[in-house]
Amino acid sequence: EILAAITALLAPAARPLAGRHALVTSGPTHEPIDPVRYIANRSSGKQGHAIAAALAALGARVTLVSGPVAQPDPPGVTVVRIETAREMLAACEGALPADIAVMAAAVADWRVAREAGQKLKKEPGAEAPSLMMTLNPDILATLSHHAQRPGLVVGFAAETEKVVEHAIAKRRRKGCDWIVANDVSGTVMGGDANTVHLITAAGVEDWPELPKGAVAERLAARIAAALA
Amino acid sequence: EILAAITALLAPAARPLAGRHALVTSGPTHEPIDPVRYIANRSSGKQGHAIAAALAALGARVTLVSGPVAQPDPPGVTVVRIETAREMLAACEGALPADIAVMAAAVADWRVAREAGQKLKKEPGAEAPSLMMTLNPDILATLSHHAQRPGLVVGFAAETEKVVEHAIAKRRRKGCDWIVANDVSGTVMGGDANTVHLITAAGVEDWPELPKGAVAERLAARIAAALA
Repeated sequence: EILAAITALLAPAARPLAGRHALVTSGPTHEPIDPVRYIANRSSGKQGHAIAAALAALGARVTLVSGPVAQPDPPGVTVVRIETAREMLAACEGALPADIAVMAAAVADWRVAREAGQKLKKEPGAEAPSLMMTLNPDILATLSHHAQRPGLVVGFAAETEKVVEHAIAKRRRKGCDWIVANDVSGTVMGGDANTVHLITAAGVEDWPELPKGAVAERLAARIAAALA
Repeated sequence: EILAAITALLAPAARPLAGRHALVTSGPTHEPIDPVRYIANRSSGKQGHAIAAALAALGARVTLVSGPVAQPDPPGVTVVRIETAREMLAACEGALPADIAVMAAAVADWRVAREAGQKLKKEPGAEAPSLMMTLNPDILATLSHHAQRPGLVVGFAAETEKVVEHAIAKRRRKGCDWIVANDVSGTVMGGDANTVHLITAAGVEDWPELPKGAVAERLAARIAAALA
C-alpha cells in the first residue's frame, strides 16, 4: 500500500481514474424462502472483487456492493454487504452518482413470491410444495435508465449456451454500454480463470482465457481508456 | 497434536471412544435448480464440525460427511464433501458400519423436481416460474432403520417455534435415539453459541447457552457415557 502510494506520487499517469467514482457489484444474492432456506447463485465473487481492486489500483474511488462471499475486502475499497437483489438495488442507488458502474454480481432473477415467517414443515405424507416465484428488480436495466445514470454502465452475462448471441441481445435490452459475457457451463464458477467476450456498440471482442485478476486489469484499463 | 498424543498415552481413560467409528454430518446441502442456481440452507457447519472434532478428541475414528462450508477440516477426521442430500445419503451409507451417527447437517427436505440442464432464461414479459419440488431422501430415518443401523443414532432438529414439542415428535417419527433440538429463530445460524435441548427416551434436558465447541464436548461426553 505504501509502495502503491509512492508509485502514484511518482507517476500520476498510472492513476487515470483518479477523481472518478466506480460502483461495482459482486457475488451472488440470497433470496429467502423461509428463515432457514434460500435460493442462491453459484458466484464466488472472485471476478467482481478483482474488478473493484483493479479500478481502485487505477485511482478510482470504488464502492463495492457485494452479496455473501468468502472473498476478503479489496484494500482501499468501500464495501457494502447485502443479501437480496432488492437490497443490492437500494445500495447501488444509494451509491450514486458514479462515473462507472460494473455490475458483476450474479443477481437472482426471481425471488419467492411470499417468504414464510416460520420454517416450512415437512408434514408426514404431505406432497412437496411448489415455490411460486416473482420477478426481482432488474438492477442493470434500472441503472442504465436512471436519472443519475453513470457515464459508462457495464453488465455481465453468464450463459451456458449461445453466449455471444444472448449477450448482444442483453446489451440492447438492458440499455447498458458494454456486456462482459462468459460461458459458465464449465468450471468458471468458483474457479480462478475466465474466458470472456466484451460486447460493445462497436462489436464483439473475444478475449483469451485469463486469470480473473488479469480479466479485471484488462477491463479496468479499457474503462480508463474509454473515459480518457 | 503432539500434546494430545502424549496425553492419550498417559491417560487412556481420556479416550473412551477408542476403537469406535463415528459418522457425523455437517453443513447445508445445495440442491441445484439449474447450472447456476440452487436452493440452500443457512448452516455454517460450525456445530457439526465441532462435534466431529470432539468425538475424535475422545478417541473415536470419525467420518465427517459435509456439505459446502467455509469451516476448516477438523484434524484427524476423514472428511467426505458432498453437495446434495442424495449425495449425503450415499456417503453416509458408504461409511457404515458405524457405532455412532450424529446427523447435524441441515439437509434440504426438498429438491427441485426437474433440474434444468441449461440456465433458466428470464424471458422479457414472461411470468416468473414456479419451482415444483419433490421430497429428498430422509437420511436420519434411513439410518435409523438401516440393516447396519449404528448403535446410537442422534438427530438434530432446527426449529423456529414449539422447539421441544416438534423435537419429541421428530424423535418418534424418525426412529432415532436422541434429538438435539435448537431454536434457530435468533442468531444461532452462523453464530458461535447455541442453546439446545437433548431429547432422549428418558425425557428432555435443557442445556444452558454454550459456545458451539462446548455443546460439542458435552454431547461427545454424553455419547461416550452411553456407550461405556
